[in-house]
Parts: sequence; C-alpha cells; structure tokens
Amino acid sequence: MNKHFDVGIIGGGVIGQSIAYQLAKEGVSVVVLESQKIGSGATNAAAGMLGANSELEANDAFFQFAKESQRLYHTLSNELFEYSQINIQLVDNGMYKLAIKDDEVEALQQLVKHHSSLQWHSREVVLENEPTLSMGIKGALYIPEDGHVSPTHVCAAFSKSANYFGASIFENTPVHTIEKTAANEYTLSTPHTEFTCKHVVIANGVWSGYFFKQLGINGSLKPVKGECLAFQSSDIHLEKTIFYDHCYIVPKGDGRFVVGASMVENDWNTLPTIGGIHSLLEKVTPILANMESATLLHTWAGLRPQTDDGKPYIGQHPDGESIYFATGHYRNGILLAPQTGIMIRDLILGREQNEEYVEAFSLKRKLAQKVRG
Amino acid sequence: MNKHFDVGIIGGGVIGQSIAYQLAKEGVSVVVLESQKIGSGATNAAAGMLGANSELEANDAFFQFAKESQRLYHTLSNELFEYSQINIQLVDNGMYKLAIKDDEVEALQQLVKHHSSLQWHSREVVLENEPTLSMGIKGALYIPEDGHVSPTHVCAAFSKSANYFGASIFENTPVHTIEKTAANEYTLSTPHTEFTCKHVVIANGVWSGYFFKQLGINGSLKPVKGECLAFQSSDIHLEKTIFYDHCYIVPKGDGRFVVGASMVENDWNTLPTIGGIHSLLEKVTPILANMESATLLHTWAGLRPQTDDGKPYIGQHPDGESIYFATGHYRNGILLAPQTGIMIRDLILGREQNEEYVEAFSLKRKLAQKVRG
Amino acid sequence: MNKHFDVGIIGGGVIGQSIAYQLAKEGVSVVVLESQKIGSGATNAAAGMLGANSELEANDAFFQFAKESQRLYHTLSNELFEYSQINIQLVDNGMYKLAIKDDEVEALQQLVKHHSSLQWHSREVVLENEPTLSMGIKGALYIPEDGHVSPTHVCAAFSKSANYFGASIFENTPVHTIEKTAANEYTLSTPHTEFTCKHVVIANGVWSGYFFKQLGINGSLKPVKGECLAFQSSDIHLEKTIFYDHCYIVPKGDGRFVVGASMVENDWNTLPTIGGIHSLLEKVTPILANMESATLLHTWAGLRPQTDDGKPYIGQHPDGESIYFATGHYRNGILLAPQTGIMIRDLILGREQNEEYVEAFSLKRKLAQKVRG
Amino acid sequence: MNKHFDVGIIGGGVIGQSIAYQLAKEGVSVVVLESQKIGSGATNAAAGMLGANSELEANDAFFQFAKESQRLYHTLSNELFEYSQINIQLVDNGMYKLAIKDDEVEALQQLVKHHSSLQWHSREVVLENEPTLSMGIKGALYIPEDGHVSPTHVCAAFSKSANYFGASIFENTPVHTIEKTAANEYTLSTPHTEFTCKHVVIANGVWSGYFFKQLGINGSLKPVKGECLAFQSSDIHLEKTIFYDHCYIVPKGDGRFVVGASMVENDWNTLPTIGGIHSLLEKVTPILANMESATLLHTWAGLRPQTDDGKPYIGQHPDGESIYFATGHYRNGILLAPQTGIMIRDLILGREQNEEYVEAFSLKRKLAQKVRG
Ligand SMILES: Cc1cc2nc3c(=O)[nH]c(=O)nc-3n(C[C@H](O)[C@H](O)[C@H](O)COP(=O)(O)OP(=O)(O)OC[C@H]3O[C@@H](n4cnc5c(N)ncnc54)[C@H](O)[C@@H]3O)c2cc1C
Ligand SMILES: Cc1cc2nc3c(=O)[nH]c(=O)nc-3n(C[C@H](O)[C@H](O)[C@H](O)COP(=O)(O)OP(=O)(O)OC[C@H]3O[C@@H](n4cnc5c(N)ncnc54)[C@H](O)[C@@H]3O)c2cc1C
Ligand SMILES: Cc1cc2nc3c(=O)[nH]c(=O)nc-3n(C[C@H](O)[C@H](O)[C@H](O)COP(=O)(O)OP(=O)(O)OC[C@H]3O[C@@H](n4cnc5c(N)ncnc54)[C@H](O)[C@@H]3O)c2cc1C
Ligand SMILES: Cc1cc2nc3c(=O)[nH]c(=O)nc-3n(C[C@H](O)[C@H](O)[C@H](O)COP(=O)(O)OP(=O)(O)OC[C@H]3O[C@@H](n4cnc5c(N)ncnc54)[C@H](O)[C@@H]3O)c2cc1C
Repeated sequence: MNKHFDVGIIGGGVIGQSIAYQLAKEGVSVVVLESQKIGSGATNAAAGMLGANSELEANDAFFQFAKESQRLYHTLSNELFEYSQINIQLVDNGMYKLAIKDDEVEALQQLVKHHSSLQWHSREVVLENEPTLSMGIKGALYIPEDGHVSPTHVCAAFSKSANYFGASIFENTPVHTIEKTAANEYTLSTPHTEFTCKHVVIANGVWSGYFFKQLGINGSLKPVKGECLAFQSSDIHLEKTIFYDHCYIVPKGDGRFVVGASMVENDWNTLPTIGGIHSLLEKVTPILANMESATLLHTWAGLRPQTDDGKPYIGQHPDGESIYFATGHYRNGILLAPQTGIMIRDLILGREQNEEYVEAFSLKRKLAQKVRG
Repeated sequence: MNKHFDVGIIGGGVIGQSIAYQLAKEGVSVVVLESQKIGSGATNAAAGMLGANSELEANDAFFQFAKESQRLYHTLSNELFEYSQINIQLVDNGMYKLAIKDDEVEALQQLVKHHSSLQWHSREVVLENEPTLSMGIKGALYIPEDGHVSPTHVCAAFSKSANYFGASIFENTPVHTIEKTAANEYTLSTPHTEFTCKHVVIANGVWSGYFFKQLGINGSLKPVKGECLAFQSSDIHLEKTIFYDHCYIVPKGDGRFVVGASMVENDWNTLPTIGGIHSLLEKVTPILANMESATLLHTWAGLRPQTDDGKPYIGQHPDGESIYFATGHYRNGILLAPQTGIMIRDLILGREQNEEYVEAFSLKRKLAQKVRG
Repeated sequence: MNKHFDVGIIGGGVIGQSIAYQLAKEGVSVVVLESQKIGSGATNAAAGMLGANSELEANDAFFQFAKESQRLYHTLSNELFEYSQINIQLVDNGMYKLAIKDDEVEALQQLVKHHSSLQWHSREVVLENEPTLSMGIKGALYIPEDGHVSPTHVCAAFSKSANYFGASIFENTPVHTIEKTAANEYTLSTPHTEFTCKHVVIANGVWSGYFFKQLGINGSLKPVKGECLAFQSSDIHLEKTIFYDHCYIVPKGDGRFVVGASMVENDWNTLPTIGGIHSLLEKVTPILANMESATLLHTWAGLRPQTDDGKPYIGQHPDGESIYFATGHYRNGILLAPQTGIMIRDLILGREQNEEYVEAFSLKRKLAQKVRG
Repeated sequence: MNKHFDVGIIGGGVIGQSIAYQLAKEGVSVVVLESQKIGSGATNAAAGMLGANSELEANDAFFQFAKESQRLYHTLSNELFEYSQINIQLVDNGMYKLAIKDDEVEALQQLVKHHSSLQWHSREVVLENEPTLSMGIKGALYIPEDGHVSPTHVCAAFSKSANYFGASIFENTPVHTIEKTAANEYTLSTPHTEFTCKHVVIANGVWSGYFFKQLGINGSLKPVKGECLAFQSSDIHLEKTIFYDHCYIVPKGDGRFVVGASMVENDWNTLPTIGGIHSLLEKVTPILANMESATLLHTWAGLRPQTDDGKPYIGQHPDGESIYFATGHYRNGILLAPQTGIMIRDLILGREQNEEYVEAFSLKRKLAQKVRG
C-alpha cells in the first residue's frame, strides 16, 4: 500500500471529493482519508438545492463564486458521467419562493427590482404552474436558475471519477493528527497507517474545527444541525422547488419529495429528534393542499459546518505552511463544491487566482475580524 | 407438495398462527396460507400491550376472555421458546394511565373503587417510580397486570412452533376464493395452487370482510389505521407502559420506546402519513420531560380489523358449514391471540366450549343486531 | 371515491403502469388496482437491461416488437420526466457478451455475420475499453443498442404520469374475482371495494395465471425466480453492461453494480435463498479482476412471469369479452413495457394494429398449440 | 455541559460500556466518548457466543477469566433488565462441535477425556436432538455451558444501566489525542469538546492501536475482519449453536440464524465483501440438510481487535500513569466483557485483584515478549 502522496485530503464529503477530482485529473497523486464512509457527513443529508440566488443575499464575491459554481454543474454533469457512469441527477426547473403574508409579497417583489434573473409570479400563474400548492398563497418569486442535484450522487461521482484518474480513497480512516515531519512533508496519523504528503487539505466539514485548534489557527466551526424528511404522494405534483419560511420541498428525480430543514445550533448528534421532525411537519403542512395524506417515507439529519461569519474558509494556512482549508460551507456546500475544487486545485498548483475570492474566503479575514471584534 | 389438509387457515397473522399452533400440537394436519409474509399485516405493526384491564371496560364475557388470554402468555412464553427458540419478550411491569387534568384524576380514581386489581398512585409515587415523566401529571392509575410482548416475536414463535408440530405454512399465497367442492371438502384457490381441506378458518384480519361477502354472511370489517413511531433516548427511563389520551409509550426490551397510535377509519393504505405522525408527535410530546430531544428512529402503520360492535368474530359459520371465523380483533388481537387459538381448536375438535364466549363472539349476534338495528 | 371507470387494470407493475399511462394520456378514465405497492412484483427486482439484441434470438415479430419498444425509451425518457419529474435513468452504452472459452468465441463471431448492428471486439479492444475485466477473456460481442434503465424509476414514472393525466391508482387493493355483472360491465372485487369497468386489463404478472383459470382460458404462467445482488467497488469501472454465461453485471447510474440473475422454476417465494446467491457468486467472481474484494451491498429476488412458449400474452379474451391480457413478459418485461402499453391502448380504443404482433402474442396461439400438443 | 469526570472511557463498544456500568454503579463519575454510535464497532457485528469452552484451549488464567465472565452473565441478565428494561437475550442451550471427518471424531473425543464439562454425542444422539442437521455428520462434542447473548442488546443494556447510575455517554465524539495537562488530569480532545478526567480507559477496540503509539507503548492491534450472514427457514430447527470448521450457526431468539464468520487479516473496511460471503456460503451449506433453500436475510462485517499473542490487554499503563487499557478482546469480547468491566473497576478503585489475571493481561507481558523475541 502506497503511503506517500503529493496531496493528502482529510474528509471524503462533497468538498474533499471535488478537490480530489480536480487534482487527480491534472495528474497529481492524491489520497482522500475519510473517517467513515464517503459522503456520510453533511453531504448525504443535504437536499441538493443549487440555491445561488435563493440562499445568498449580497451581490458580492461570495455570490459570484456561487453563481460560477452553479454553472459548472452543467458541464460536470456529463463529464462526471463519462468517468464514473454516475448520473448526478441535475434538474433545472427553478424555484418558487412563496409569499403567503402580505409583507412577504412586498419583500419578494422588492427583490425582483434588483435582480434581472428573478421574476414575480402572481397567485394565478403560480397555481397554474403548480396546481397542488395550497390555495392560501399570494404569489411567488420565481428563480429560474436555482435547480438541484442529488448530493449522494454528486459525491460518489466525484469520488469515482477521482479514482478513475488514479486518486486513492480510504474509508474507515480518521485522521487524528497532522504533523510536520520534514521540510515538505506532513504526516497524517490514522489508527492504522501514517500517510505522508507534501500538501494537506483540511476538508472534513464541521469536524475540521479540531485541526484549526491543533494548528493554532484562530477560527472555529460549529454545527447547525438540519433535520429532513422524505414523502411520497400520487396527489402531489411539483415541477419546481418550493421554498417558504426556511422550509423547502424538493421534487427529486426518483419521485420522492425532500423536505428540509430544521436549524439546531451546537447539536453534534447526527440523528433526527422528535422535536425537530415535529417542527418540520408543522411548517410544511400548510404549503401543499394534500400534505396531510402524503406518505411519510423516512427522516434523517446532518450537520452543516458554520463559521463565525457564515462564509467558508477556502485558502492556505496563514503562516505559509502547505496546508489548505476548504471547510465551513454551511448551508451551501453542494452548490459550492465544484468551484471550491477548482480554487484549491489552483492554489496548490500555483495557478492564477481570482484575488477577490482569495480575500473573501481567507483564513486571515477571520483573524482580522477577531482582533477588531 | 401436499395440497390436502384437515384444516386450512387463511391468514398468517398472530391469530392464524395461534390457531395453527394449537391444532398442530394436537396432531391435526394444518396449512396456513398467507398472502404476503408471516405477520406482515396488523400484527407486526402492533405495540404488543396486553391491555386486558386498560383496554376493556365492561366486566363481561369479553373481559373474562381477555384476562384468560393474558394469563396464558405466562405459560406460552416458555412453551413457545422450547419449540421455536424464539423469545416472545414478555414484560410484566404493568401500566400507568396518567391523569393530567382534574377530571381525569376523578375518572381514574373511580375505577380503582370498582376493580380490586387497580391502584391509584399519587403524583409523588408516580414520579418516584418513573422520574422521567413530565412534571405536569397529577397522578396515575396503576394497572399491574397489563404487561407487553413483542408481536413480531409472538407471531414468529407460534408459526415456528406450529411448524415444529408439522404444520405447513405458505407465504406469498393469497386465497382468492373458498368453494365447497364436495361434502367435507372446501377448495381454497390461490394464484398457483388449489388447496383442499375439511375445515376452513378465516383469520385474515381486516381483509376477511371479503369472505364474509363471498360466503353471504351479514357482517363487515373496516380498517382503523394506526400509525406508530419508535424513539430512543439515554435521558428517558421507563419501567411501565405509559398511557394518556389514546396515546401510549411502551418501553421495549431492546431499548426502543414504541409510541402509538393514531386512529384513522377506512384508510386501507398501510404506510404512515404526514398528518398521522404529526398528530402523534403532538400528543406524545407533553408526556415526558425530555421528549423533544429524543432520537426519532422510525415510523410505520397497520390496519386494525374492526367489526360493527368492536368485538371479534370467533365462531362457526351460521349455517353449520365447517368454516370458522377468527377475525375482528381490532385493538387487542395480540392480547386475544392465545385464547382465540384455543377456542377455535376446541370448536373444530368438537370439545367442550365456554358457552358465554360462544355467545359473545358468535356471528349470529351480529346478524341479530342488524335485524334489530 | 369513484368506483366506475372505463378501464380497470389489474396489477401495478411496469406493464400495468405503462398501459395506464397510454390510456390516461388519451383521456380514458383508468383505474389501476395493485395488491401491494406499485412495482413491488418482478418490476422492482429487475436489472433493467433493454436487451432486445442480447436476449432474443429469432428475427421474428417478437424481435421487431422488442426493438420498437427499446427505441421508444428514448422519447419516453423526456416525456415521462416532463409529467412526473422522475428520471428513468436511461443509459445507452451498450453491452459486451464475453467469450472465455473457444467455442464461445466462435458462436459469438457467428452472430456478427448475421446482424449488422453487432460487432466483434478482440481481447485487446475489450480490455482497453473495460480494463477492470478479468484477463481471461478472449473477446466479446459488442451490442451497441442494448442499454438499460432503472425499472423502479420507469414504473414510478409511468404511474405518476398516468396520475398526472387523471388515472386513479390504488395500492393495497388485490383483485380477488372478475365478474361480468351487466352488458358492458365487469365487476372487480377487492377486500374493500367493488370496482366496475367497461374493459378489464389483466396485467398482474405471474399471478395472472389465476385469472386465466377463473375465466376458463387455456394458458398458464409459472414463476422463474431470479436472485440478484448489488455491489460497489472503487477498483471496478464499467461502462457497458457485461454478460457471460447467463450472468450479467449492470453499472447503474448511482455507482452500484447490479448482478443477476439465477433461474429457479416454480418457486413462489420472493426472497433470495442461500443456494441462489451462492450460485450467483460462483458465476460472477471470474468475470472481473477485483471482484472478491468488492463490497456486497444487498441481495433480493423477483418472479419472472413465464408462459409455456416464453412469449407474452398481449391481446383480447378469445371469446370476445372486453377483457385484455398483458402478461407473461418473462425475462424482458422492462424492455417490452412501452410497446405493450401502446398495443393494449390501441386494442381497447379500436385503433389499427400491427397484425403480426396480434398474431404473435395472441391467446389463441396458445390454445392451438395445446390442442396440437 | 459537564466536561470534568473522574474517569473518561474512550470507546462505546461492549467493553467500554461494561466498564462504565461497573464504575457508575459504584458512584464514580464516568464519561464514555464514542466516535460513532454505541456498539457500532465489532460489538454489533458479533454473533454473541459465550464460547469459553469452545474458543479457548489451554486451562490457564485466560480460561478461568473467561469462565468467570460467562457465569457473570447469569446474574447480569436480571440486573441489567432491572436498570435498563433491556433483555440481553441470554440463551443457555449449549453448543455442538461437529465431527464430519474421522480425524475430527478423534480430536473431539480426546477433549472429552480432559474436560469434565464436555460430552461426546454419537451421530444418533446428535440427529435426534438436532434433526435438521445434515446426515453426513459422525458425532459431536457437546459443550453444555457455552450459550449465547445478543451483543447489541448487551451493549445497549450496559449503556442504559450506566446511564441510570449517572454515567454520561457521548456519541459522535471521537477522541483524537490524550494529553496529561496537570497532575491527576488528562485531557481528551475531540472535534468539539475537551474533556478532562483523572483516569483514562482506552477501550476503543482495534482502533486503540493509535493510542498505544501516541503514548509510546510497545504493543499493536490488527483487525481480523469477520463477515457474517443471517438466514431464516421454516424447515430448520436448531436448539444449540452448531460449530464446524471455523464456521458457526447461532439460533437467535428472534427466529433468525446467524452464521459467522470469515477471518480476514488487516482489512480495515467494515463492510462484507463478495469474496468473504462467498467463502462463508461455501462452508455453511454442508452443515444443514435444507440450507440451500433457506432465505438469506442480510450480511454484515466487523473488525475483531487482535493483539500479537491473541490475548487482551487489560491493565494499567506500564509507567504508572492513570491510563488503563481494556482492548484486544479479539474473537471473545462479548464473552469477556463482564469480567473486564469488573477488573478495570477494581484497578481504578484500588481494590484487590486476582494477580494471575493482572499478569496474564498485562501490557508488560507484551513488552517482555518483544524484548525476548
Ligand atoms: C439538512 C441539510 C440540508 C442541506 N441542504 C443543502 C442544499 O440544499 N444545498 C447545498 O448546497 N448545501 C446543503 N447543505 C449543506 C451541505 O450539505 C454542506 O455544506 C456540505 O455537505 C459540506 O460538505 P463537506 O464535504 O465540507 O462536509 P461533510 O459532508 O460533512 O464531509 C466531511 C467528511 O469528513 C469526514 N471526517 C470528519 N473528521 C474526519 C477526520 N478527522 N479524518 C478524516 N475524515 C474526517 C466526515 O466523516 C465527513 O464524511 C445541507 C446540509 C444539511 C445538513
Ligand atoms: C398500530 C397498532 C397498534 C396495535 N397495538 C396493539 C396492542 O398493543 N395490543 C394488542 O393486543 N393489539 C394491538 N393491535 C391490534 C392487533 O395488531 C390486531 O388485532 C392483530 O394483529 C390482528 O391479528 P390478525 O392475525 O387477525 O390480523 P393481521 O395481523 O392483519 O393478519 C392477517 C393476515 O392475513 C393476510 N391476508 C389478507 N388477505 C389474505 C388472503 N386473501 N389470503 C391469505 N392471507 C391473507 C395478511 O397478509 C395478514 O398477514 C394494534 C394494531 C395496530 C395497527
Ligand atoms: C431478477 C430479475 C431480473 C430481470 N431483469 C430484467 C431486465 O434486465 N430487463 C427486462 O426487460 N426485464 C427483466 N426482468 C423481467 C421483468 O422484471 C418482468 O418481465 C416485468 O417486471 C413484468 O412486469 P409485470 O408488470 O407484468 O409484472 P410485475 O412487476 O410482477 O407486476 C405485477 C403486479 O401485480 C400485482 N398483483 C398480483 N396479483 C394481483 C391481484 N390479484 N390484484 C391486483 N394486483 C395484483 C403484484 O403485486 C405486482 O405488483 C427481470 C426479472 C427478474 C425477476
Ligand atoms: C464477525 C464477528 C463475530 C464475533 N463473534 C463473537 C462471539 O460470538 N462472541 C464473542 O465473545 N465475541 C465475538 N466477537 C468479538 C467481539 O465482537 C469483540 O471482541 C468485541 O466486540 C470488542 O469490543 P470492544 O468494545 O473492545 O470493541 P468495539 O465494539 O469495536 O468498540 C470500540 C468502539 O470504539 C469506538 N472508537 C474507535 N476509535 C475511537 C476514538 N478515537 N474515540 C472514541 N471512540 C472510538 C468505535 O466506534 C467503537 O464503537 C466477534 C467479532 C466479529 C467481528
């Protein structure tokens, strides 16, 4: 078994796998070390919305980054299928953000004025397009660009494609410590093997906070647990994703509807609770006319990795060590995975970077802020 | 493959299997025909409470029958283990029926006066015995005799023990029609085989209504769907079954807690709905102090077979055909299975009967009632 | 609840749902009665190969029918997505039929001579295209047209699209008997409801043998049980379906590989056996180089509906009753579903038919044969 | 959240939970830190045989320890039920070690001479007691004392009972490093919390090798992966556990039969492979007459923690640190858990020890051996 690699990636979620894919495709020797199973963290729990427009607010570098990442999915869909035979289930039917109360109508209409890609649909149009929505709605913001994918399939496709280009992927392999054992050599210790590599990428989601601490970096991650459920119903037809009051319904390509998600801070347990599912049912019931009689299929949960300012850390160790961070993608890691993979690849390969992105996601921003704060 | 049997039993739920066991043990040649898998109807969905005292109200023949059946479980537990190596998970810690509102206190205390086997426990005693109950309770009726079993294990144990004594059990074998094809011969038609037998037992739960009709009998069955959930929590300790406002929590011997059950009439779908689980969560949350943070494990549903007067039909065809009915056990089929098996066995073997039971569960009672009604 | 329909379809597998879709789309009022859950019969067990070329031998009407059905999937894929939002997972990478022994080389090369759509690939070409195949192979027949779909998704997509056009679909609704209750009226009896309809379609797979008998028709169906397994491996990459010695490996679009299938006659049990999976493992192991270390994910089984001559029955009742048969699709029901739906639709609507097909799948062919035999 | 405890236990498998239970019951403040879910390591994969006689060979301290542990299960069964309401499924029907070849007969008969608790059963007696065994057997060694439990239930029962006595149990909490941060204070770092404690117990199965290294201790653990399957059959009745050629069949109290287990060294993957299950099917098929037609239910795997000499490490850090080891229980951790819990409890509480045990399981034995070796 080879134990020496150019790049060692800690974490086999969608972020780690996207990075592995981009590097392996360039011929770099890569290993991904995953403590449990590929995708078994936040990734497999995600709904898979590509909500660049619906999730982000300011028209800043973060937003540009997200839009680029969203667009990348259109080429990745074929590319990944070619290398992995896995279909990432990209669906591009857009999203409706509903208005039920009067102030919601206003707020959403306001948005249309400022974003050319958004449209306002009246109650009639909405109910014509989505006749199984509840009658109570007053209209909706239509966001044509925010489609969705299957996170499990995306992660598996990145992984298998990375594999195809020679990347090694070890499941059941938690990294306990990172040590600099020589110039240009870091040792990653796991329960069974020590791996050495020239560059390290820390991409283990909410659990990467530990390495911030171990490496003496001033930044932290906290989990925001999200609980979800899936249902099925022959009486419910939806073409678009539906969004209302922090709750969404995504019509998946296998006939199930995914409903998400609660927001519970600082709960590290990865299973759904009675209270969480209760609150989700409360919220989703009024959205669709026939919701009560739909079949509940299953429930699950995952931990969103949240940073102090809600933006990811994508960048190099502040002291110039060849340690890279790609973590803290919070509510949008599926959306941001393609572009994160490219950015880390370019950083490691010393390629040109978009300086705005470097700035926006830098670990130093955080340090600065903390000092100021 | 043998196709000729003394007794053909339609339905492989707890009732059919209990009957098969009692007959096979007496050396009778028996076949059980089950359309899907053993226990896959109401049986596997049940919570397994042996609620003779908590479920039944009048001190009538039905109550006596239930009490006898409850007692039988104590000997069956060892007997079935011997023949099947299956442990039916009998737990005998009793039940608390909670009082939270004042009128509930009164109503439950009233019961204690009339039943020597019931006791009233004050708030203090209850919370000492069950410290994880919510603080809001005012006291509880303690029912020492109402324990619980695992319905899946009971059904499998009856089945395997029947097997041990020579009974044949065919899964994936729905009976479509019953025909009298000779004196002393009934033919049961299934998609693949015709079975002949001298005696037929109709024990296919809520689906037996079809045979009432086919045989021209005036009686009907309707489903009362029950939706359930299981949870787990290291903060919750319960020794007794807890009952409040049609909702119960049973501490099962594998560490899970089973919560049941909704009551939905005339829904033939066997999966839980969004609305049903929602209502269950609503009801169960106030009962335990740490309920909200408990882990939701899974949800399911089943169809209780309800007759017009809520009592089962256990008896012979009104016209003297050698066709027996053992169906309509509604909320208490697990409790009633042992005694139902014995009663049908004795009817078929021409043994002495308790005439009160014959009367109470007769198919004619129904006919009479309908005429009057 | 409406109980009167133009067309009553018995069986909610891929065949019943394809018919429901084609009829509902034409505005016909349709009900599908399914004894368990949509697709829960052979359909969900199938591997989903569209093996028109690989499965069929003679260049006869049956082959033409299969080729047409195969082609239909290309338009259905988009059409069904539009109405149901379900992606049927059509993959069009072709199939390799391997030659390992010398006589296999010869036999396959022979086929290439007679079919212009087939090609012979030498060992080198095969291993270049599929480098994870075992080194022992001698070459392969390449069948570019035989792709695959996900049967579960196809069946759900037909069902949901039928639904979209107004079809009613009842699960948990076994039909026990079909009776002519008036001119132009058939009554379908189920445990809970009697449905009446002008036309009946019998599409309940291997279980439809019962209705042949009930209706006095000379034809029978027997199950040929097929056991399957799924595995996963980062060391195995396959683009095409691989076929060898009755055993195949299908690279599904979710990263799993499906291996099928055993052939066990007259076993009505729908679960896999120790012996069946054992034989499958025996067969599949030599095909791929890294097979032994692949992860076994799960195992399952289903019952192929086989007629006496191996061809389906698609046609009207021989006595002119408005009862139609669409059953006996044996190893190829997924492949044949689209064209079967169209043929039954046209028969019911009195549209023009391909007379060769009518002949080939007629119930009378069978009768004739039996008389001769 | 409390972060200071007397004892911090790393690993929530059967060993860690047994220790937690014994300490908590004595009023010690205990925390168990488990990286995934309680029991999710080797514990839940185990068959649960209490094979003191069948697994161990020499009549040494290890054997005495195992016998004591086996006996403890008889009292623990009730004790744990009382505190946890969990039934550990203790079954005490003994085991048959089969002889099929002549030399096996001899070898087993030899054992009877030396152990008074063992008996030789002739072919006739064996087939009378276990009539579904295959006819090919020549006799069997009967081991009355080797029963079995359900490992999942045992682990959950220890955990819930520890809980009952005040122990804290954190799932999703991997320990990355152990550091001495003060006299009498060790800090256990996890991704989210640092726990401090006066004593540390390393009980994380095969993964504890990491801490040996981190703490500079000369000892190692390697995984010996075991793959298992469960089957069901109405034609198979077994009262005793059956053992032949490293393969066993355990009749569990829920009607399933558990078959184990392969032996694969140095595979850290926790899922079963095609090759492993294949070899298991090969071995088990000849043991029972009707094996081929039994229903295969599911397959799984786990990693046995093996030390260099096959005996567990149970004892204190060689340098007198207050760090205790309880790991390396290899094939017998379920059997050995009760006594291991007691031994570690007594070590920590400074109670009297059986010096033979201290010697036998000491970490120094290993060091010594290595020096000699
Ligand atoms: C309910 C829910 C819904 C969501 N919906 C969306 C959505 O619709 N759209 C969207 O864009 N995003 C969504 N997200 C967010 C998205 O899931 C995350 O941002 C994304 O998955 C983060 O990916 P990751 O690879 O960084 O982390 P993870 O997927 O958590 O992967 C980290 C991996 O690291 C492994 N690991 C941990 N510690 C170690 C170690 N020491 N050594 C080795 N490996 C380790 C873990 O096992 C894990 O597999 C949602 C999240 C949740 C919880
Ligand atoms: C949520 C819930 C909770 C419950 N809790 C309790 C409880 O705590 N205590 C208690 O005592 N009772 C309880 N019950 C009630 C109890 O489950 C039922 O009374 C009991 O299971 C009825 O058993 P059965 O064998 O008559 O019916 P079923 O278990 O429904 O068995 C009937 C069988 O017949 C088969 N079948 C149907 N049609 C045919 C055919 N044509 N041919 C062949 N086979 C056919 C079905 O597949 C099924 O397996 C509960 C029920 C529910 C739904
Ligand atoms: C292991 C395996 C692999 C296969 N692989 C392929 C493949 O790669 N490609 C291919 O083309 N084909 C394949 N097949 C064949 C294919 O699955 C079948 O030909 C096809 O599914 C038949 O569809 P159906 O709708 O006729 O039957 P089914 O799918 O069996 O549907 C019949 C339905 O009728 C219901 N039913 C039964 N009785 C009644 C009643 N009395 N009332 C109401 N409903 C009733 C059943 O519950 C069932 O859902 C495979 C089959 C198997 C078993
Ligand atoms: C197939 C099979 C069959 C077996 N059959 C039997 C049998 O019949 N009888 C018998 O007596 N024994 C049997 N065994 C052996 C038995 O399962 C083991 O000896 C026993 O389970 C070991 O228990 P443990 O608690 O030490 O380890 P585990 O159960 O593996 O528990 C260790 C725990 O530590 C956790 N962990 C790992 N790293 C960390 C960390 N850094 N921080 C926190 N937690 C961590 C893991 O997630 C795991 O839950 C069998 C084993 C296998 C695999």
